[in-house]
Amino acid sequence: MKQSVISTEQWLEEHLLQLNLVEDMNQPNGFSRLGYSPEEWEAHDIFIQIAEKMGLTVRRDQAGNVIARWNPVNAGNTALPAVSMGSHLDTVKGGGGYDGVAGILCALGAIKVLKEEGFEPTHPLEVICFASEESSRFPISTIGSKAMSGIINPKELQDLQDAFGTTVKQAFESRGLHWGSIQYAEREQNEIKSFVELHIEQGMRIEHAGAEFGVATAVACPIRLSIQIEGKMGHTGTTPMGMRQDALVAAAPLITFISEKAEELSKESEYPIVATASTLTVQPNAMNVIPGTVMLGVDIRSVDDSLKERFKIMIKEKCQTIEKEKDVTIKVETIVHNASIHLNRELSEKLKKIGESLGYSPLVMESGAGHDVMNMSKKWPSSLIFIKCRDGLSHHPKEHATLEDLRIGVEILVGYLQQEAGNDR
Amino acid sequence: MKQSVISTEQWLEEHLLQLNLVEDMNQPNGFSRLGYSPEEWEAHDIFIQIAEKMGLTVRRDQAGNVIARWNPVNAGNTALPAVSMGSHLDTVKGGGGYDGVAGILCALGAIKVLKEEGFEPTHPLEVICFASEESSRFPISTIGSKAMSGIINPKELQDLQDAFGTTVKQAFESRGLHWGSIQYAEREQNEIKSFVELHIEQGMRIEHAGAEFGVATAVACPIRLSIQIEGKMGHTGTTPMGMRQDALVAAAPLITFISEKAEELSKESEYPIVATASTLTVQPNAMNVIPGTVMLGVDIRSVDDSLKERFKIMIKEKCQTIEKEKDVTIKVETIVHNASIHLNRELSEKLKKIGESLGYSPLVMESGAGHDVMNMSKKWPSSLIFIKCRDGLSHHPKEHATLEDLRIGVEILVGYLQQEAGNDR
Repeated sequence: MKQSVISTEQWLEEHLLQLNLVEDMNQPNGFSRLGYSPEEWEAHDIFIQIAEKMGLTVRRDQAGNVIARWNPVNAGNTALPAVSMGSHLDTVKGGGGYDGVAGILCALGAIKVLKEEGFEPTHPLEVICFASEESSRFPISTIGSKAMSGIINPKELQDLQDAFGTTVKQAFESRGLHWGSIQYAEREQNEIKSFVELHIEQGMRIEHAGAEFGVATAVACPIRLSIQIEGKMGHTGTTPMGMRQDALVAAAPLITFISEKAEELSKESEYPIVATASTLTVQPNAMNVIPGTVMLGVDIRSVDDSLKERFKIMIKEKCQTIEKEKDVTIKVETIVHNASIHLNRELSEKLKKIGESLGYSPLVMESGAGHDVMNMSKKWPSSLIFIKCRDGLSHHPKEHATLEDLRIGVEILVGYLQQEAGNDR
Repeated sequence: MKQSVISTEQWLEEHLLQLNLVEDMNQPNGFSRLGYSPEEWEAHDIFIQIAEKMGLTVRRDQAGNVIARWNPVNAGNTALPAVSMGSHLDTVKGGGGYDGVAGILCALGAIKVLKEEGFEPTHPLEVICFASEESSRFPISTIGSKAMSGIINPKELQDLQDAFGTTVKQAFESRGLHWGSIQYAEREQNEIKSFVELHIEQGMRIEHAGAEFGVATAVACPIRLSIQIEGKMGHTGTTPMGMRQDALVAAAPLITFISEKAEELSKESEYPIVATASTLTVQPNAMNVIPGTVMLGVDIRSVDDSLKERFKIMIKEKCQTIEKEKDVTIKVETIVHNASIHLNRELSEKLKKIGESLGYSPLVMESGAGHDVMNMSKKWPSSLIFIKCRDGLSHHPKEHATLEDLRIGVEILVGYLQQEAGNDR
């Protein structure tokens, strides 16, 4: 057993580098494989090579997702619904080498372990590599898993642009795909038995709870607000303090309110809520001009949708108070309003027990970030495993998960595949 | 008299358009004549045409300043120190048509009135059009008047760049000037008897005081701070409220403090102080990332230098408190520290009395903004007249001064020239 563990970690280390297209995970500028870019496709190609070498059957669907499949020896079983796992290989610009990759790597690792153990699946097993999960190139996330789950609206998406004016459709077609066919990536209900994604936590809750892994019961999707504060420009030297309508001075108590109120609500509510004034731009942003306009972006998340909604109303009320106090005009626009997604209870419970039976302490938690699993869960029983990541750092060159934590992930996925597609069922 | 007044306003209106190179002052995109740009030179050319048509002798100095001079008929008097007026014709990008122009226009208008009245000056009279007053192209203001006053450091300036990477030296030389000769623009102490600049107020203090014009006794030069707040990036969805080091949440109470404390200090001090958090940038400024770094620019002005200094220390102390409370690191750098400039008391008193004797109510005040006069005052007795501008709006396409207020400016300058260079002295 000891020998096998060491070799799994070695295997993970080697394939982590391969999937990241590097020879050393220490990359000061991080990893940049934007959705539907040549770099994402390069990583897909490596994934295909690895999967084929492992004897898996690989196909690319009409959305650019790559599906690697282990068909049962008994040909009659190949039409049974698949036991699936998956994540993504695209990254944000200058991101880390574990967000997404960890899920693909551990899923492949689980296949590797089961192959070596001579496992004979009763259902097809799948590793799905979803295309374009991140929203950092185009202002839309999880395109591939949306298409597979049949919840994509091609017309709404096609003209969204990246920073260089390339549309989703153009990027998609420059990968050799046909935009008009994207909806054919949708899969039937009976093609998949269940789906599990493994992902790095991108936070520190597992570590702070003294646990070894996390099982998510829900995904807290965001409400996002765009708040425009209109004050009045003026010369910083010639406008007395009492005569100003400074948009940034008006923004300050709102930023404080959002942070303090979310902390307070988290303490008194059943589920936590997080809220962040994450983007702010000042117009004209010149040293000798009083800020005339401030644009503030606010991201609010909780699995408790009514709490999210209540918090939005509190922010609007606070804005009204500030309008009067600071003599400014504030417009609050809801730009994203996504209901939270509850994952499959039984499957989550099963994953928790598998981990516990292996000797690992679980944390049952919510996911604060969106993942491909949230789309898959709309059609198939789905759940989400978290492994720890160092300092909670993600979307960052220094993002890191230990080989030990990756191996824990592999072991839990092995247990999941054994239970869902084993002979003993 | 009534007829002459009307014709002065008509003259002002026509020449206002000419100096602004337009046929209508309603310019939605404003006026853009950056320092040492072809556009500034175009305005200089119009100034030269107007001045020559009025019979003035015009020369351009080694810094690009244009000096238009009315020499006394008595040749013996041409070597006497000049009674000078001046301002600038460059603008910020998308600025107004009065900042600078008003001073040049009223000075020319005063010459026009005196010429028509058959005035015979005992001293040379001058209208000086200073080059590159604004700091919106290069991060340095009042280049022309610094050169004339002999307080320029060509080596320090020459490599400063504009947004396109053009250096001060390159821009200067592309106007046909020779950088190595700029210091020869310095004039002797005995060349100028006194200097008066007329400028729009760029604020609303005159209006709020119920006065018709302002006389400045001092120029409140700024202390400028660059404050870097280092927190820690994190995912907005996965980082609980209590575990954050949000740089923007740390910036908020500082912005509030700067505004509230300046207002409080202004009330209890002899001279007002104004302080503005005028620039703010967030890194990475992405909707799903907790702000990791905030850069804040703060502009502090008062003619009371010790109050400015005291306020800077208060800001530093507040930063130390915030560092502890918000678990961030704050670096405060002083990027500008200019002592305030006191203008010539006697000359200011004289201008106040001239205005009063004409029936206009004065406000004795400080200038919160820097102007060419602050450099001239280091070498020659100098003062500054303000006229009202609508809503205090400046550096803006809608910047506006009425023809009546411009005419009041002309009348006061006429009085100044009569007293300083008249026969009755």
